[in-house]
Amino acid sequence: MLETPISHPLKLAFIGSGQVATHLALAFEQAGHRVQLIYSRQLAHATQLANQLTQTSATDNLNFVEQPGCDLYIISLSDAAVTTVMAAAQFPTDSRVVHTSGSLPMAVLLRPAFKLQIGVFYPIQTFSRNQPINLAEVPIALEAPEPELAALLQQLAASISRKVIFMAGTERKKLHLAAVFACNFTNHLLGISHEILVKNQLAPDLLEPLIRTTIEKSFHNHPFSVQTGPAVRGDENILQEHLQMLSEEPLYQEIYLLLSRSIQAGK
Amino acid sequence: MLETPISHPLKLAFIGSGQVATHLALAFEQAGHRVQLIYSRQLAHATQLANQLTQTSATDNLNFVEQPGCDLYIISLSDAAVTTVMAAAQFPTDSRVVHTSGSLPMAVLLRPAFKLQIGVFYPIQTFSRNQPINLAEVPIALEAPEPELAALLQQLAASISRKVIFMAGTERKKLHLAAVFACNFTNHLLGISHEILVKNQLAPDLLEPLIRTTIEKSFHNHPFSVQTGPAVRGDENILQEHLQMLSEEPLYQEIYLLLSRSIQAGK
Repeated sequence: MLETPISHPLKLAFIGSGQVATHLALAFEQAGHRVQLIYSRQLAHATQLANQLTQTSATDNLNFVEQPGCDLYIISLSDAAVTTVMAAAQFPTDSRVVHTSGSLPMAVLLRPAFKLQIGVFYPIQTFSRNQPINLAEVPIALEAPEPELAALLQQLAASISRKVIFMAGTERKKLHLAAVFACNFTNHLLGISHEILVKNQLAPDLLEPLIRTTIEKSFHNHPFSVQTGPAVRGDENILQEHLQMLSEEPLYQEIYLLLSRSIQAGK
Repeated sequence: MLETPISHPLKLAFIGSGQVATHLALAFEQAGHRVQLIYSRQLAHATQLANQLTQTSATDNLNFVEQPGCDLYIISLSDAAVTTVMAAAQFPTDSRVVHTSGSLPMAVLLRPAFKLQIGVFYPIQTFSRNQPINLAEVPIALEAPEPELAALLQQLAASISRKVIFMAGTERKKLHLAAVFACNFTNHLLGISHEILVKNQLAPDLLEPLIRTTIEKSFHNHPFSVQTGPAVRGDENILQEHLQMLSEEPLYQEIYLLLSRSIQAGK
């Protein structure tokens, strides 16, 4: 079978119709590419996204050999679903397939029977239904060992974002670890703070300007160099008072103690 | 001695000339009040701020009895300095004195010899030299047991901010505890994330859009309800892999474990 020649603009297929697929598909179409096909396990979901695009078919069939050829298959599913779907899917030989996950290795896409060219197209952002995202400012981390796919991904990413970088899987893992601290854990601390405010009949939005400024300041300095608060000041009275105030929440006490200790370790 | 009558606009004195004093003094003057006097232990610092204002004197003398009367003395110093300065200062009898601290109790201002009316004027924000702040959006937490001072502070705060609230000292303590989680600890986690990125030759700004979106999302939902990441998904493989990657940083390992446990506790 002949290798599919790359068309310009690109012909794309999405496997998945969630938030990442939706934001990317709309942006790609706006950039002039053609989104040819949307797959979802639930046809209604695929159709819903296809209806937001032009000239786009919807399918719940994982046999892509029977569909018109695409320049690139973009797998945009939950990490857990990627393996299952890859095991079941049938691709035209020599197809190009990428996933959009920050935490999955590229190798989950290996299907030697189809001689796939595989890669990663990871937009470093979180997407939700009602939050518009300016994709132009979202860094896109690419991985593609084969130069032809690398060139294609570079072109595709640069058509929607100003910040395109190549990153090996080992680096993407480090980035993901850093994101767990900066986003997942940060969100949890904001949840604890929210809980303390609400429990004490204080409006949860009272701290918003302070939080925003703290975050912006951390972007313009090494965060450790602009650390404030009782721990870095070594204010033992306040530390003890705060631990006392948390006496009904032993887990929060533990978190308070450990993070204060880490701040004081000069980190 | 007669009680100083309240003038409109207000005549103000600042004890302290740091970032909080600077931002507030400039905003008060812009709102039409008169900043009459700036005290600093170092006269040059007081003069520097006074020069940014009109009709403002600078002093390093804590005997305010010898100075023209003011409607309000605003003590804007580091927490540690407030007690020292209050012990040394001489005020006209019946003066009104507030501090601007979120963590100090109002009672640090007690000086029975001068029959002071005391209170708190706490802008819930962090101020730095090169970061302009829109004070109109900064909530100002007031405390003033005496109705006359309460009315004066309400008027003063409302002249620079749209968000004025009265808050007892016990509530301000809870707010401060919540801010330690939401700001001080969050900044530390951003520092750890920054360190992981830099150590692995990844640009520290790669995560900025993701962090900004995470924070904004946490403002529009209860943060616990929008928690993402390996801990809340129960992804044990990733958790183990991340702990392994942190093997040279036992303190960060501990933080990772404890916060993951707290997330999984359904908090």
